[in-house]
Amino acid sequence: MKTYDILIIGAGPAGLTAGLYSARNGLKVGIVSKDIGGTVNSILRLENWPGFKGSGAELMKKFYEQVKKYEVDFIIEEVASIEKIGKKFVAKTKNNELECNALIIATGTERKKLKIPGEDEFLGKGVSYCATCDSFFFKNKDVAVIGGSDCATTSALALSDTSKKVYLIYRGEKLKCEDINKERLNKKKNVEIFYNSFPLEILGKEKVEGIRVMSKGKKEDIKVDGVFIEVGSTPLAEFTKKIGLKMDNEKFIKVDENMKTSVVGIYAAGDVTNHKLKQVVVSASQGAIAAKSAYDLLSNKR
Amino acid sequence: MKTYDILIIGAGPAGLTAGLYSARNGLKVGIVSKDIGGTVNSILRLENWPGFKGSGAELMKKFYEQVKKYEVDFIIEEVASIEKIGKKFVAKTKNNELECNALIIATGTERKKLKIPGEDEFLGKGVSYCATCDSFFFKNKDVAVIGGSDCATTSALALSDTSKKVYLIYRGEKLKCEDINKERLNKKKNVEIFYNSFPLEILGKEKVEGIRVMSKGKKEDIKVDGVFIEVGSTPLAEFTKKIGLKMDNEKFIKVDENMKTSVVGIYAAGDVTNHKLKQVVVSASQGAIAAKSAYDLLSNKR
Repeated sequence: MKTYDILIIGAGPAGLTAGLYSARNGLKVGIVSKDIGGTVNSILRLENWPGFKGSGAELMKKFYEQVKKYEVDFIIEEVASIEKIGKKFVAKTKNNELECNALIIATGTERKKLKIPGEDEFLGKGVSYCATCDSFFFKNKDVAVIGGSDCATTSALALSDTSKKVYLIYRGEKLKCEDINKERLNKKKNVEIFYNSFPLEILGKEKVEGIRVMSKGKKEDIKVDGVFIEVGSTPLAEFTKKIGLKMDNEKFIKVDENMKTSVVGIYAAGDVTNHKLKQVVVSASQGAIAAKSAYDLLSNKR
Repeated sequence: MKTYDILIIGAGPAGLTAGLYSARNGLKVGIVSKDIGGTVNSILRLENWPGFKGSGAELMKKFYEQVKKYEVDFIIEEVASIEKIGKKFVAKTKNNELECNALIIATGTERKKLKIPGEDEFLGKGVSYCATCDSFFFKNKDVAVIGGSDCATTSALALSDTSKKVYLIYRGEKLKCEDINKERLNKKKNVEIFYNSFPLEILGKEKVEGIRVMSKGKKEDIKVDGVFIEVGSTPLAEFTKKIGLKMDNEKFIKVDENMKTSVVGIYAAGDVTNHKLKQVVVSASQGAIAAKSAYDLLSNKR
């Protein structure tokens, strides 16, 4: 069993910043995560992390390198469960049991599914949840993007640079993204937006050949080679079930302004929390605040 | 009279991030500030802004350059007062009247004074509030740093690299700084820490020649050429007096989790708010959140 003062679950902006602050506070820190960077890695052009220009993956590499300057233990594994044993918390992975005095949960979110025919069948055969990762495969081809949020519109924009035609299929009447990206989309000749529309089925034999949408009350088939699904995210907090953290209706972990959860000694930060503005800079800040709160708790204990 | 959708007062981490987000939301943005970067400019080595290595001034330059890519109007002047006229807010400087629909206050803090004899008299003649700015003048000389916070200890560390001897004079029994800096201080042979001590008078004729301290109940004179005063900060919010924002006991502006103040249409972000953790990453996050809240308000108005 490995033991730490603070164990951080997740290594995106929140987890890595919590690691940086905790290490600088002289604590014995473990960071356990299935990967480094999390969903930020899929951002092709990150334009709203202040003072930085580049991709999300590049920024996460910088975060990681900064944390690695300190004595922080990285365990690249997924956490299956956490529980309280006496005054300690124990996180279990496939190969490890990690014990700690305070826990910071920064596991972020995963993409929501459409739950329509063809979605699972054609995953990796035209269906994708990551434009950054897969746009290369659709060079000079036609693609559809499903959704109307920041993620969907930035994916549509990125795809429009390389694909032949991009259909943006959105349930609402007005895109829910930054105005700068609305304008950029409007200037793109190869982007067509279907408002008041939603997908019924992904069509094809061996691979994606089209998408059937309900557009303003009428069924319509659109010929595409790829379908990018960007309809939101769900928090990755299932593994906390046993310990019974308070969550909101959508299962995001409830935190107060100091990132305290409903269980003393457990903090949460980043997209997994119930904070509304899901942004890298907000997650990083929450990581710093969670680390400070955990440090204050442990300092009083000592 | 210049008019804006959003006027941001202050151009440190909070103000510049608010500007970035507001501009990306397609709003007409003005940033009015007496300088660019604020107190962050005085940080010699900024080690806890994730993914960055360099000085505070270097980081603020990067923030500024990123904002300048958008059509944001910078007015380099100090705001004397703000008032509400009809549904608009008006900020007055010496040369301008700036009108807006929503206001973000991000003016930060200024250094507290000791209020002891010699402090005002020897300002610039050995007394300084900025180690980064003035350490050069005390190369191979003896200096005193007053305070025990993060600011005081990082200043003492920076000065120990260039000055001959550094006395750290602190009222408390235990330094209130990151543990990593405690360790670094302990390793420095030319740093001497006076705990349970406070300064009574700064001594000298033409310039600083020493400092009189009360140390554990006894008066003691220490020969130094410079005195660096790092005893905390007060919020720069006097100019909001007329409009009557709710403040805490120390005159920091009270905000909720969306950075709303007690007046609809006015938001605050960064060190000027009542949030406890005064860190660049927290200020930047608050700037982003304030910008989002202001945008939401204006979108509903339209």
